[in-house]
Amino acid sequence: MSGNSFGKLFSVTTFGESHGPAIGCVIDGCPPGMALSEADIQFELDRRKPGTSRHVTQRQESDRVQILSGVYEGVTTGTPIALLIPNEDQRSKDYGNIAETFRPGHADYTYWHKYGVRDPRGGGRSSARLTAPVVGAGAVARKWLKERYGIGFMGCMRQLGEIAIPFQGWEHVANNPFFAATADAALLARLETYMDELRRAGDSIGARIDVVATGVPVGFGQPIYDKLDADIAYAMMGINAVKGVEIGAGFGAVTQKGSEHGDELTPGGFVGNQSGGVLGGISTGQDITVSLAIKPTSSIRVPRRSIDKAGQPAMVETFGRHDPCVGIRATPIAEAMLALVLIDHALMGRAQCGDVRVDTPRI
Amino acid sequence: MSGNSFGKLFSVTTFGESHGPAIGCVIDGCPPGMALSEADIQFELDRRKPGTSRHVTQRQESDRVQILSGVYEGVTTGTPIALLIPNEDQRSKDYGNIAETFRPGHADYTYWHKYGVRDPRGGGRSSARLTAPVVGAGAVARKWLKERYGIGFMGCMRQLGEIAIPFQGWEHVANNPFFAATADAALLARLETYMDELRRAGDSIGARIDVVATGVPVGFGQPIYDKLDADIAYAMMGINAVKGVEIGAGFGAVTQKGSEHGDELTPGGFVGNQSGGVLGGISTGQDITVSLAIKPTSSIRVPRRSIDKAGQPAMVETFGRHDPCVGIRATPIAEAMLALVLIDHALMGRAQCGDVRVDTPRI
Amino acid sequence: MSGNSFGKLFSVTTFGESHGPAIGCVIDGCPPGMALSEADIQFELDRRKPGTSRHVTQRQESDRVQILSGVYEGVTTGTPIALLIPNEDQRSKDYGNIAETFRPGHADYTYWHKYGVRDPRGGGRSSARLTAPVVGAGAVARKWLKERYGIGFMGCMRQLGEIAIPFQGWEHVANNPFFAATADAALLARLETYMDELRRAGDSIGARIDVVATGVPVGFGQPIYDKLDADIAYAMMGINAVKGVEIGAGFGAVTQKGSEHGDELTPGGFVGNQSGGVLGGISTGQDITVSLAIKPTSSIRVPRRSIDKAGQPAMVETFGRHDPCVGIRATPIAEAMLALVLIDHALMGRAQCGDVRVDTPRI
Amino acid sequence: MSGNSFGKLFSVTTFGESHGPAIGCVIDGCPPGMALSEADIQFELDRRKPGTSRHVTQRQESDRVQILSGVYEGVTTGTPIALLIPNEDQRSKDYGNIAETFRPGHADYTYWHKYGVRDPRGGGRSSARLTAPVVGAGAVARKWLKERYGIGFMGCMRQLGEIAIPFQGWEHVANNPFFAATADAALLARLETYMDELRRAGDSIGARIDVVATGVPVGFGQPIYDKLDADIAYAMMGINAVKGVEIGAGFGAVTQKGSEHGDELTPGGFVGNQSGGVLGGISTGQDITVSLAIKPTSSIRVPRRSIDKAGQPAMVETFGRHDPCVGIRATPIAEAMLALVLIDHALMGRAQCGDVRVDTPRI
Repeated sequence: MSGNSFGKLFSVTTFGESHGPAIGCVIDGCPPGMALSEADIQFELDRRKPGTSRHVTQRQESDRVQILSGVYEGVTTGTPIALLIPNEDQRSKDYGNIAETFRPGHADYTYWHKYGVRDPRGGGRSSARLTAPVVGAGAVARKWLKERYGIGFMGCMRQLGEIAIPFQGWEHVANNPFFAATADAALLARLETYMDELRRAGDSIGARIDVVATGVPVGFGQPIYDKLDADIAYAMMGINAVKGVEIGAGFGAVTQKGSEHGDELTPGGFVGNQSGGVLGGISTGQDITVSLAIKPTSSIRVPRRSIDKAGQPAMVETFGRHDPCVGIRATPIAEAMLALVLIDHALMGRAQCGDVRVDTPRI
Repeated sequence: MSGNSFGKLFSVTTFGESHGPAIGCVIDGCPPGMALSEADIQFELDRRKPGTSRHVTQRQESDRVQILSGVYEGVTTGTPIALLIPNEDQRSKDYGNIAETFRPGHADYTYWHKYGVRDPRGGGRSSARLTAPVVGAGAVARKWLKERYGIGFMGCMRQLGEIAIPFQGWEHVANNPFFAATADAALLARLETYMDELRRAGDSIGARIDVVATGVPVGFGQPIYDKLDADIAYAMMGINAVKGVEIGAGFGAVTQKGSEHGDELTPGGFVGNQSGGVLGGISTGQDITVSLAIKPTSSIRVPRRSIDKAGQPAMVETFGRHDPCVGIRATPIAEAMLALVLIDHALMGRAQCGDVRVDTPRI
Repeated sequence: MSGNSFGKLFSVTTFGESHGPAIGCVIDGCPPGMALSEADIQFELDRRKPGTSRHVTQRQESDRVQILSGVYEGVTTGTPIALLIPNEDQRSKDYGNIAETFRPGHADYTYWHKYGVRDPRGGGRSSARLTAPVVGAGAVARKWLKERYGIGFMGCMRQLGEIAIPFQGWEHVANNPFFAATADAALLARLETYMDELRRAGDSIGARIDVVATGVPVGFGQPIYDKLDADIAYAMMGINAVKGVEIGAGFGAVTQKGSEHGDELTPGGFVGNQSGGVLGGISTGQDITVSLAIKPTSSIRVPRRSIDKAGQPAMVETFGRHDPCVGIRATPIAEAMLALVLIDHALMGRAQCGDVRVDTPRI
Repeated sequence: MSGNSFGKLFSVTTFGESHGPAIGCVIDGCPPGMALSEADIQFELDRRKPGTSRHVTQRQESDRVQILSGVYEGVTTGTPIALLIPNEDQRSKDYGNIAETFRPGHADYTYWHKYGVRDPRGGGRSSARLTAPVVGAGAVARKWLKERYGIGFMGCMRQLGEIAIPFQGWEHVANNPFFAATADAALLARLETYMDELRRAGDSIGARIDVVATGVPVGFGQPIYDKLDADIAYAMMGINAVKGVEIGAGFGAVTQKGSEHGDELTPGGFVGNQSGGVLGGISTGQDITVSLAIKPTSSIRVPRRSIDKAGQPAMVETFGRHDPCVGIRATPIAEAMLALVLIDHALMGRAQCGDVRVDTPRI
């Protein structure tokens, strides 16, 4: 209720700060009877973890996850699954200079005003490090959705600053440090150079990410408020640094006519997917397609005007170890969030309509 | 929980279908002691109601609201406020031809698959008519936020199909049927002509809407999940036909550098508002700025390919009375939704941190 | 969240005050596809309604229910079911003398302190009249539980003041005005005389009620917090005037040894039901047995010491029309509440474990 | 939502099983700015922990708590407080003989039927060991309620099997192993002897516990459903082994007349406390008084009839280390649960009515 739990039936409550002893989460509502090991979760955590290339933060964290509960003899029991990820590389002194000032574009200012107290080490609770437990919980959700419905999740970067990245195939995503769905060596080299220059300049850059869920049955979602697309928008806008969310045609729908936008139906299925797989807040059985705008990291070395806690002018330069493009590591996070939304609606659909209807063939 | 309630502490539960006897809502959590009359609510309902120009649906509904509870001698008592809006102009026969088929781009298909049964009259529960109770509840929220914090809400259309509409001032919005913030007579005439041609063609068109909240104190919002911007995205994407949501710079942030995007601070306040008034999920004290993409209405006269319930091919032409641009009436709806999000966070802030901190001067 | 909704997945939000224009509720989460008419609901409302004998309040209310939404062509659609019950016999003047003082044992005092404002007419929101919508919602829940699982609900009065009422059979309950499960004419006459004397004295009396659910599958309930028995205790203690709740052996368990209390198991099932059908918060497949203590009505004619809003001494005598034993009409209310708890757990069980396991034969 | 979280605004999510690596909880919603150390929490955990006398389980657990998050430089930050309590003395082999059978009166049977899988070691999730994190969270709640409102909590045993224990003063509770509010040496000796004989016989016994909250302001609680007494009943009935709950007069109200039960008011305050400090679901400003019936432990050495997973007859004798009267350690648990209910209502009251009204002097 105070904003640290995600989901109603598959509910994930996270805890921890960037430089505390540990971060983690409690997953409440995972159905019983599913095989689950730490390796299932570690795979996704490793996709997100820092230090995997020179283009992301150099903080050294193995992000080794421990399952503390909810699994007995390798099988989920239906009771809460607690995940613990120790913090290993806290360097609180890196942040000493920002404890008394506010970084432009950062939660420093608002946390301090809301709570009257904050943990300034690494951004404390507002750090993107807190997406690690989410990715862990997402891995559990993904496994269940895969086994129960055959649902899969993919994501890729589509734009880095001014550089658009064409989509050539999901198989390329794991082969470069940008989650780019391309094998175009020249383009990848250009991305490398772009990031290297940015890092030298001490600045950061925005990005655009696409995420897709495949194999989703028709019938996930609630009408009016807990619409599937509304919950996706909530999940995505809640990821650190996200400033915009689109489903299907997104802002492209502004200039479309009804006769262009509405996906026609034939006995073989829908013709086109302008809807992004959601109509009236309920899944259509097509791919769910989502697009995100991610702002540039606010912690940069470029000096900026700000104020201190007393309201006096101060210049702020942020040292420490930061992602020059927080959008790079956003792909596995966005996939995890999409999985968390879908499992919640899958369980909700079972509650309301029973399992059978949700599995209705998609014509 | 089944998706018909909005908000946690100022919770609005709606009921009704487009062509049933009545629609309405129950507002649970309105603080006691506020003067409230039906006139306070009617004003906002009249801004949204159908039949106010030839560019919106010609359904004749007075949308006359009754307060059934929660107000004693003109003052809220802290108990649930039930609002009832009778349906007056049901013409169910208009929809007879779509009971057995699915309109492309419409919730017909997904409702039928999810529930195995649906009320086809006017779209039943999925009708945009169900935004009327939301606007009613929003009027209550707006009054409290105005009196308690001085918060105001404005919205306007910024684009109708290909026609961009420049912002010239909020005072113009009420003087034209498009909620356009302009007094440019030539532009308004062009919008009229555009809509007339579209209506004759039996087609529909998308739109872009901006909504703003002013006077918001610093400190509204929760970290991690119930971020203010995440809840706004949820609220906006949940409005019928919305396909995209932006906060502040929105998708413009993709091409921004950190040194451009992060709003600097001076003793006089923030310089710029790329953040849209939210940092780390918590309000900054600046204006909250939101932008929405609204898809074209799916109920159009243009014949389209579809299937019937048996999966056989069928052509669908929708008669009945529909908005050729559902974006036109979306402005007061989006304002209402934004108010519902803010009052919920206002109350949540009081719970967690007490009233004083929320009122902290914004430096 | 502000305390006017009951249930998480089958969620009932009530509204209204004793002497406002109408009372009612919105039921969110009723599964689609169930036949439902106003007659199904009216039957239960008539069991609870006032004026059915001289031993209950003489207020004349037909409690005629209207379904405003959620049912199409006689079948539930999965969308919210709104029930409206107009108030017909408001006599606000009866209560004029208590608007400025506080009845001993009544919510007058606490409502006024909490909200700073209250509707004094008939107790406003705190009136037992507000149990009518609950009974209506309960009727919907009972129908679904009956059709889906064969679950039934019965209740009876077991004690009226000092007079214990033996249980002789459920078939007797409908044949006397006390919901007594007995055909003992002498005992029933004694109850009549007892109530007549009490009414003449202007006083009121407590009662003890038993409620039972039969046919409940094994597996309803959640561990740790949303235990089935915890939710039953919450539901029952929330009924106006209830001061104690027991499950199974109840307070009798205080003097039992483990070798007496623990119900042994044989291949034919449990031997005994000390548990009241719940172990570890989860249903055992046996009858759920609940017992309630109901305090005497606080609105009595006997003069009592109190204070007025200014804190000055005042004598209070309550006229108006009141139940001299609010326990009499409590039986159908308690049955309804038990049904609301069970349907919520039935749906929750479907969400978490699927339908099949819940239907597991009870060995 | 799946039953492992308690509270809406001060929300406690627990995790862990009796014999897993650790148990713990995440507290979401603790207001910022309160001094908090592990010692504050350890004090209450030590009151509950096993092995403190020969009359409770001899399992050796230091129940040493670690704060993993939510506290910075000794002060709460408003972010989640995670508490971790490692399990130290797991002896899983003690339970080997019950993995295939069901203990009469135990959750073994229902967990297995609901989930189809269970962790049988020490009762897994259903173990009373899981009350430790609750006591930890309760300690945090108690500290805040004490500092903010001056609220205090006390509890004592009032009956052990057939032996009634008179109340002589709270100061005695800490001086004997039974939480008895008496200094009567003969009575205490009788309790010792009674427990020794019971332990030798391999049996167990029920108990009755009283819990009281003092200093509660008038105005805590919601009308209709989230009544303060309803939430207390939910909290108490949710404690392992509780079968009955009373508020104030409790079942004594059955034989009371209205003129006896309703507490009169004078300018000096209420005369009597039959209400137990709650009227209409809202606190009166008097002491909150609660009484609990606790059943005898189901894990006993006395051989009992049962069945195995195949439904075949089996005799069950439970070895391992169990409390012969689970009621003894229930006192600090019940105090903690009462604190968790009150802090939730304190925060809810701030949300709805602001802080000032809740602090209104109690006349």
